[in-house]
Amino acid sequence: MLLIRATGTTPLNADDTADTARLRMIADMQPPFARLMGAKIVEATRDRVVAEVFVREELANRNGGLHGGAVMAIADNLGGTATFLNMPEDAGTTTIESKTNFFAAVPLGDTLRAECTPLHRGRTTMVWQTRITRRDGRLAAIVTQTQLIIAKDAAAP
Amino acid sequence: MLLIRATGTTPLNADDTADTARLRMIADMQPPFARLMGAKIVEATRDRVVAEVFVREELANRNGGLHGGAVMAIADNLGGTATFLNMPEDAGTTTIESKTNFFAAVPLGDTLRAECTPLHRGRTTMVWQTRITRRDGRLAAIVTQTQLIIAKDAAAP
Amino acid sequence: MLLIRATGTTPLNADDTADTARLRMIADMQPPFARLMGAKIVEATRDRVVAEVFVREELANRNGGLHGGAVMAIADNLGGTATFLNMPEDAGTTTIESKTNFFAAVPLGDTLRAECTPLHRGRTTMVWQTRITRRDGRLAAIVTQTQLIIAKDAAAP
Amino acid sequence: MLLIRATGTTPLNADDTADTARLRMIADMQPPFARLMGAKIVEATRDRVVAEVFVREELANRNGGLHGGAVMAIADNLGGTATFLNMPEDAGTTTIESKTNFFAAVPLGDTLRAECTPLHRGRTTMVWQTRITRRDGRLAAIVTQTQLIIAKDAAAP
Repeated sequence: MLLIRATGTTPLNADDTADTARLRMIADMQPPFARLMGAKIVEATRDRVVAEVFVREELANRNGGLHGGAVMAIADNLGGTATFLNMPEDAGTTTIESKTNFFAAVPLGDTLRAECTPLHRGRTTMVWQTRITRRDGRLAAIVTQTQLIIAKDAAAP
Repeated sequence: MLLIRATGTTPLNADDTADTARLRMIADMQPPFARLMGAKIVEATRDRVVAEVFVREELANRNGGLHGGAVMAIADNLGGTATFLNMPEDAGTTTIESKTNFFAAVPLGDTLRAECTPLHRGRTTMVWQTRITRRDGRLAAIVTQTQLIIAKDAAAP
Repeated sequence: MLLIRATGTTPLNADDTADTARLRMIADMQPPFARLMGAKIVEATRDRVVAEVFVREELANRNGGLHGGAVMAIADNLGGTATFLNMPEDAGTTTIESKTNFFAAVPLGDTLRAECTPLHRGRTTMVWQTRITRRDGRLAAIVTQTQLIIAKDAAAP
Repeated sequence: MLLIRATGTTPLNADDTADTARLRMIADMQPPFARLMGAKIVEATRDRVVAEVFVREELANRNGGLHGGAVMAIADNLGGTATFLNMPEDAGTTTIESKTNFFAAVPLGDTLRAECTPLHRGRTTMVWQTRITRRDGRLAAIVTQTQLIIAKDAAAP
């Protein structure tokens, strides 16, 4: 996800706890595609972003489970959001690569939990890992993605 | 994408050319999520599956471009479809891993072309690479994914 | 790494602790390439395999650090060893894919620690994640790899 | 592989053909680890870098084939070399991520060919794909890697 962090957006500290105002801000900045996925951000600090997604029929593969593409899309959005919460004002970010391993199907009607935590937070790149778990706690997939930090006025990658 | 190839589905040969009947069959078997993405299969042989997707607003990131998650989702679906066209009757397939590199943004209003071709077609796994290009011909992303072939009556991976 | 687990090799239980005899067995089965890397297995249970590697000059890149290729090679070997410790007798295993993210350089003269733990242990595939840390504790790289389990008498993938 | 391109090194044009002098320069700048792998650069232009590697016993896995780790190491080195040939003077480069899919074993005594070509050459990142083929022409593995370009005097990623 490509995001630009506007000047004057609420500063966040590493020890911030999730609060209603920030979650609303984060929710408001979610892009149209995240809404199409039905992703609901339930926690957002600099060190962890968590979303829940109800697995409705439109997200299905032909076998009555969540489409793998939806899993990757939900994670990609969290990595972008997590980078946004860590990057300097006026910087932008874009996903440059993403890798997913799938372990178990997520059935329709389930509500998955996607939890995104940092592997690396540098000045040029940040790397995030998102664990997708089913309501029964089983690990369904793991996504690792690299976000490029684009300094203000910089050219595209 | 997990797919089961039913007994008696149309056999395909490596030298088949795309024809209306087969494309309709392939289109009919697309899962709900592929329809949500708006992916239209325009060519489907054992050696190549191609889809076109109009980049409508619901697929957008916050910057007026196609969300990276949608790119991965569209490719995942093609790799599943391509494996379906190559696997034995009554076998199933599921994506076990997928890797994407992103190179350029795809603007809203564009129509992308996703072309999926084989890197490896074995009895246990098949590996597909999907190139996502913009209408102006620029390479926007490349996706490499591994599909596991699940023999009839076999257990899950 | 491709490995075949011979009939009659020492059975291992999930709660086994590292002991001298098993470590010697594991060390003996390390392939020539692992010895070329100088990898020393210091712990080997079904749930975790750990190696230490002294970063000697032959493993260097041009900048006085450990070559990224050596990082990937060391991890690949651990994932194969860990699968060996979990797979049925007479089965074989081969790496089918591997993904690495690099975070920090490892200087010459350092001794790295590579710790391999499971993300998924199924009948057909196992997925392992190896964390490479420097002596100062900093995370230098993370490697995720998929091992295919090849049943006795089965064909290649 | 991390490389710094020194001021005054021979400029290369996209249409350069491989010649003895340049190949010697490229060979001279190969790091110790590339020599340990036995990689011999046989072609090096801005658009393609090719190496050949004789599969000697020290590179073996336990099954009489080339170790997967060696495959990744050889490719990593080519991506670094290819980036070097394309980046500005005084810039540096380091591999930030690498992904490999393995398709076929490479037997001992074979001579593999590793051919590295660009997927993306930007100012901040370059992405290279290396195809590893056996002497019989069969595709053994494919490696995709991202190189970060580090501007002169810039901090680490």
